[in-house]
Amino acid sequence: MNETLETESDAGEVSGEMLAKIDAYWRAANYLSVGQMYLCDNPLLRRPLQLSDVKPMLLGHWGTTPGQNFIYAHLNRLIKQNDLDMIYVSGPGHGGPALVANTYLEGTYSEVYPDISPDEAGLRRLFTQFSFPGGIPSHASPECPGSIHEGGELGYSLSHSFGAVFDNPDLIVACVIGDGEAETGPLATAWHSNKFLNPATDGAVLPILHLNGYKIANPTLLARIEHEELDQLMRGYGWTPIFVEGDDPAKMHVAMAAALDEAYIQIKGIQDNARINDDVTRPRWPMIVLRSPKGWTGPKFVDGVPIEGTFHSHQVPLSDPAAHPEHLQQLEQWMRNYRPEELFDETGRLLPGIADLAPVGKRRMGANPHANGGLLMRDLVMPDFRDYGIEVSERGVKGVGDTHVMGKFVRDVVRLNEEQKNFRIFGPDETISNGLEAVLEVTQRQWNARTVETDELLAPEGRVLEMLSEHQCQGWLEGYLLTGRHGLFNCYEAFIHIIDSMFNQHAKWLKVTSELPWRHPIASLNYLLASHVWRQDHNGFTHQDPGFIDVVVNKKAEIVRVYLPPDANCLISVMDHCLRSRHYVNVVVAGKHPAPQWLPMDEAIEHCKKGIGVWDWAGTEDSGDPDVVMACCGDVPTLETLAAVSIMREHLPELNIRVVNVVDLMRLQPKSEHPHGLTDADFDELFTKDKQVIFAFHAYPWLIHRLTYRRTNHGNIHVRGYKEEGTITTPFDMTVLNDLDRFHLVIDTIDRLPPTGDKGVVLKKQLQEKLIEHRRYINQNGQDMPEIRNWKWPSGCRS
Amino acid sequence: MNETLETESDAGEVSGEMLAKIDAYWRAANYLSVGQMYLCDNPLLRRPLQLSDVKPMLLGHWGTTPGQNFIYAHLNRLIKQNDLDMIYVSGPGHGGPALVANTYLEGTYSEVYPDISPDEAGLRRLFTQFSFPGGIPSHASPECPGSIHEGGELGYSLSHSFGAVFDNPDLIVACVIGDGEAETGPLATAWHSNKFLNPATDGAVLPILHLNGYKIANPTLLARIEHEELDQLMRGYGWTPIFVEGDDPAKMHVAMAAALDEAYIQIKGIQDNARINDDVTRPRWPMIVLRSPKGWTGPKFVDGVPIEGTFHSHQVPLSDPAAHPEHLQQLEQWMRNYRPEELFDETGRLLPGIADLAPVGKRRMGANPHANGGLLMRDLVMPDFRDYGIEVSERGVKGVGDTHVMGKFVRDVVRLNEEQKNFRIFGPDETISNGLEAVLEVTQRQWNARTVETDELLAPEGRVLEMLSEHQCQGWLEGYLLTGRHGLFNCYEAFIHIIDSMFNQHAKWLKVTSELPWRHPIASLNYLLASHVWRQDHNGFTHQDPGFIDVVVNKKAEIVRVYLPPDANCLISVMDHCLRSRHYVNVVVAGKHPAPQWLPMDEAIEHCKKGIGVWDWAGTEDSGDPDVVMACCGDVPTLETLAAVSIMREHLPELNIRVVNVVDLMRLQPKSEHPHGLTDADFDELFTKDKQVIFAFHAYPWLIHRLTYRRTNHGNIHVRGYKEEGTITTPFDMTVLNDLDRFHLVIDTIDRLPPTGDKGVVLKKQLQEKLIEHRRYINQNGQDMPEIRNWKWPSGCRS
Repeated sequence: MNETLETESDAGEVSGEMLAKIDAYWRAANYLSVGQMYLCDNPLLRRPLQLSDVKPMLLGHWGTTPGQNFIYAHLNRLIKQNDLDMIYVSGPGHGGPALVANTYLEGTYSEVYPDISPDEAGLRRLFTQFSFPGGIPSHASPECPGSIHEGGELGYSLSHSFGAVFDNPDLIVACVIGDGEAETGPLATAWHSNKFLNPATDGAVLPILHLNGYKIANPTLLARIEHEELDQLMRGYGWTPIFVEGDDPAKMHVAMAAALDEAYIQIKGIQDNARINDDVTRPRWPMIVLRSPKGWTGPKFVDGVPIEGTFHSHQVPLSDPAAHPEHLQQLEQWMRNYRPEELFDETGRLLPGIADLAPVGKRRMGANPHANGGLLMRDLVMPDFRDYGIEVSERGVKGVGDTHVMGKFVRDVVRLNEEQKNFRIFGPDETISNGLEAVLEVTQRQWNARTVETDELLAPEGRVLEMLSEHQCQGWLEGYLLTGRHGLFNCYEAFIHIIDSMFNQHAKWLKVTSELPWRHPIASLNYLLASHVWRQDHNGFTHQDPGFIDVVVNKKAEIVRVYLPPDANCLISVMDHCLRSRHYVNVVVAGKHPAPQWLPMDEAIEHCKKGIGVWDWAGTEDSGDPDVVMACCGDVPTLETLAAVSIMREHLPELNIRVVNVVDLMRLQPKSEHPHGLTDADFDELFTKDKQVIFAFHAYPWLIHRLTYRRTNHGNIHVRGYKEEGTITTPFDMTVLNDLDRFHLVIDTIDRLPPTGDKGVVLKKQLQEKLIEHRRYINQNGQDMPEIRNWKWPSGCRS
Repeated sequence: MNETLETESDAGEVSGEMLAKIDAYWRAANYLSVGQMYLCDNPLLRRPLQLSDVKPMLLGHWGTTPGQNFIYAHLNRLIKQNDLDMIYVSGPGHGGPALVANTYLEGTYSEVYPDISPDEAGLRRLFTQFSFPGGIPSHASPECPGSIHEGGELGYSLSHSFGAVFDNPDLIVACVIGDGEAETGPLATAWHSNKFLNPATDGAVLPILHLNGYKIANPTLLARIEHEELDQLMRGYGWTPIFVEGDDPAKMHVAMAAALDEAYIQIKGIQDNARINDDVTRPRWPMIVLRSPKGWTGPKFVDGVPIEGTFHSHQVPLSDPAAHPEHLQQLEQWMRNYRPEELFDETGRLLPGIADLAPVGKRRMGANPHANGGLLMRDLVMPDFRDYGIEVSERGVKGVGDTHVMGKFVRDVVRLNEEQKNFRIFGPDETISNGLEAVLEVTQRQWNARTVETDELLAPEGRVLEMLSEHQCQGWLEGYLLTGRHGLFNCYEAFIHIIDSMFNQHAKWLKVTSELPWRHPIASLNYLLASHVWRQDHNGFTHQDPGFIDVVVNKKAEIVRVYLPPDANCLISVMDHCLRSRHYVNVVVAGKHPAPQWLPMDEAIEHCKKGIGVWDWAGTEDSGDPDVVMACCGDVPTLETLAAVSIMREHLPELNIRVVNVVDLMRLQPKSEHPHGLTDADFDELFTKDKQVIFAFHAYPWLIHRLTYRRTNHGNIHVRGYKEEGTITTPFDMTVLNDLDRFHLVIDTIDRLPPTGDKGVVLKKQLQEKLIEHRRYINQNGQDMPEIRNWKWPSGCRS
């Protein structure tokens, strides 16, 4: 354990004068943090504290704050001394006051919000806005400069940090991990990110595990295992821990300064070894374990209850000065203990001799452009997606699998941006399975753990990152995007639900940042959901869940987009659009199995531009309103709808059928609800005002109703979709189990239309028999009937 | 590393004869596994293999299977030798063939499915049904006896296993963890479950980390870190690893037998120490690292590509014997290598001298009743919930916080079942924060890590389990329920999305098991979602997400129930119902802050029984149809609706208002869609056929439309709910930001009604001014206007 620095050790290099300056800076930040939680006036305590100086509602979380202030002050010294390019990620919940205090002290906050000026008036506003209606929340929220990680939902700080440093070789992210957060699953596996980092071409993450010992009302696990166990755990995860433990500020300053110097020396050594000696063997990066009391430097006891160093310091330690006058005194004493008169000048500005602890300009962690990634973002160099289109010699010609076609397009996105290194593909070991194998013609999976001879497509540097953790993929990608780069997450459709809550938080982040003019737009978060519900021939019921888009559409219309391209040309057209878009979450659902192709590239472009449209060549309408609208959204529903239409063409030739295909799901919503929404007039034009609509949908059928309930013809829209029926079975049988197959669609149509006469009755009976025959056939043969497998769109239809 | 058993070591106790028997049993299981993947006839290879014996579609996953067969065979020996009560959890994906093969060999499978008989005809059916339409999937699915864990979605095996052994002191769960699965977040943190287990009162989990080295198309992390790192990682997690590594079956049998003996000795020693010596100091439980080749004993090369020991063995190694005749030969050779003629008798039954490796009766892992928990489930002893009701002296009297009232009821559920030890409460450190502090009057939080003097309410044994991981809480609870016990998960509403996908999988499990007559119903999975969207005064936007119920209602209507009780008496009535119910997922959303109380207990019972109803005392209708229906669902919407009604009572007294309150959300769905659904006639009765309905809803407003779009009066239903607007602000302002406040509701009503004359115009103007005044007031004072804070339901209304 030679890397362990006990609190008694001597830092050697950091002078006593510097440590005193760090301490003063820390006291200033702590003072401002307490001020934010408590005061609405008298910010410099220029007069005795009165009840009227205290906010009427006391909200906030003291527990984590002094420790984070301590870290921030020490990092300032390290950055300045070594001219580092560093940002700060605040993992613990409710660390907002610390980040706000520090970015204010370093000057960033006032630059972004001139109203919060570096003087007494600004201080008053700084204090008042915190946890106040219309003000700022208690997390490191988007409003806080320097933040790429709000942390309201815990667990993603380390994944975000790694996402930030991929392809940023000069960047170091100081990632403070709360010991509460460390109990979450996503954080527990994020430690393994070090097996993917390339020390030559990526930057470094310095995790600082902050053991303050408590969550809301419980101790934390990592603070209550033995020292040796924690040391083993971190080494087992592949890190070299440096311990800083104690509660005496003077000793802790010495230890922390030494630990940071040591960590930086190790980081520098690793990077030099990789970059100068070309040795990218997986290093054991340093990390710091900082054990300090929760609510450090706050009240030790309140009303006889121990506060500092217990979970009672989690929120506001002195909760009701109005009812308890002695609390007011205690609060004043607490704040005066930081000796504000030694910290701020008469105007309320931090004294220059303390302020110069912080770096200047973009070296300030609050002003580092990596934390406002849109500033640094460069457009992707894009190939012309038309070049990757497939020829559609006839409607319904069998393709090779839509995602496989897209794979070639994405391959060249990778290739063309190899130099600017700002595009990555993330996936939980499914990039090949999802049909994007072409990507691996030009790059590899980045991997820095051991390799063996039989390994394939692994390298220390590559554009694809794969770990069997959807959380990790999502977290890495978010960090990568937030720092100004581009990416694509490919995932099995059912298991994208694993990151529902992470999507929620990212969508919220995008919404809030879109309202902050100083935050520059970032690249969209793009999902390719392949291996979808309708093709789980060898996985079955557990792999069938198309409900992610139900979660997505709950978020702000300005942020979310959902696409279900019916074939390969549409898919690449859509993906081209998504990769060029900004500040959205784009969800694209596509199949990977060989499937019929419908639109030549020029038609596909036109169709995707509109997002929804009539497929004249498929329908049978001549003029005026059709008898029925067959709508479809998604590749399999489109196939079944067209197969249904082909049956009706043959057996009910007089029927006037319109086929509407939906690519952009948001077109269905009213224009007032979503920017992509059709006007009611346009919607009526497509779906008629009063005809029956048989709608075959990829996902849960209710979603279509949720989107269209305000439309004129909504009462006539009948939706078939996935209704939680499924198992191991054939592709066609999946649609049968959910009543989405061609036979059911025709029967539905016959049932909904005015009597179609004998022909309809006969046809319905035939189709019901077909369904029985189907069941019998697959039970015997384990595959679909030849007429299903070999079905083709009838040639000779108008094209 | 004295616990490490090298593969060369001598097991000592296990005889060569026994090892030969284990090997034969293993070969039999491997043979049956290959047969399941490939054959539809000629199951005993009594004649040369022909192409027609092979299934037309080859589906399945060989990679993990031989390793799991190896483990199962060795566990059989251990169980029988020590008369153990043990079940098997199969964590790796696609281990189905192994579990099916083994439960067939031990006889369980044929007992459950007599058609799959222990003879050649049964074998043929066993083989054919696998991954065949209408057959069984490739996971350890509900259809497989002995399984409580399907594992289609990876990551929960260890949490499930711990859930199973809580309060089952004699049970040992052998939990096989795939090295792919081990990369997931939930699994990575589940190792820490050992800090909660009580060695005296709980059973034991024996994790067997199966390092076969590969996922789908990548190596696994834990197989590619250094031996010393893996050892440190496991010790850091608090376990004592025992390594079994190699590929020579003979040596591996010796090592595995010794490792299992050693592990059992350690488990027994720990349990004896706790139970005899009363020493419950946290032990370092044993775990096994089994490193064996992926696709072990399968083809070494196919078409020159290495298979065994590489990711190429993940699925079917010989994929197309029809196109490659040499594959057919290779398949036959592979199967004959297991020497089936030495394993099965003429009829196709496993030879007795091999079969007697397995334990008998309920000791067989496939027949252990813990894995069919409904068999063991005992009803909870329930207090009379009426005794916990609060007095409602007048409508709208201020309560203490609804969940706090429920806390006392749940406290006594805990107390009354203390003896039968079959009820637990799970939460991510939020049980106190969510208002259930009363529970801790009679029990404690179970915790087995270090404690310090200032700790509160922690003990080695207690009914509450808290870890800051929603995944862990969900996984533990699922394991607890699946083994026949009862429980409650309390969680912040926004963060329950973290386990969306786990909910999905559990709901799917319930659906499938409900269709299997031999699977007995289990207790419902009950969620209390408190700290909800409308009260995040000190958390803000990140903590505002009521969308979990959107995910829930996508699942089968037979399985899911959603309740939003408007006050405390309704809440405890609902919770009583939920705790008594079986085989559902119940979601209950409730507030924890002091809020008005509306219904005396007898009315609450009546109201909750109906699930929806007119609140006569609140409305102003006399007879005939009302002018407007004010509907509400959720505690805050109910408050705002009643406040709106009180405004209209005063200012528009001639208006005929009906108030409808919804507790059971599923009442809104058509009867054809959900068993709780109202008939259309009943719905029309409540909501009228043509009057305006102003609906104030707790969650995203679209959900109401999704549930009611088929109803007669749907076109007139106008829903207000959460629309992703929020920040740190006052309780009332949250409703204002989302247009759900009383003022907006009245304005909505005025706008929707036929002209209400001057009075309406004047009132609307007044309320618009009120909204401006509100904004001004909270900006200045940081809290709601006194008239909001002090608002009371007007007395003198009819009660």
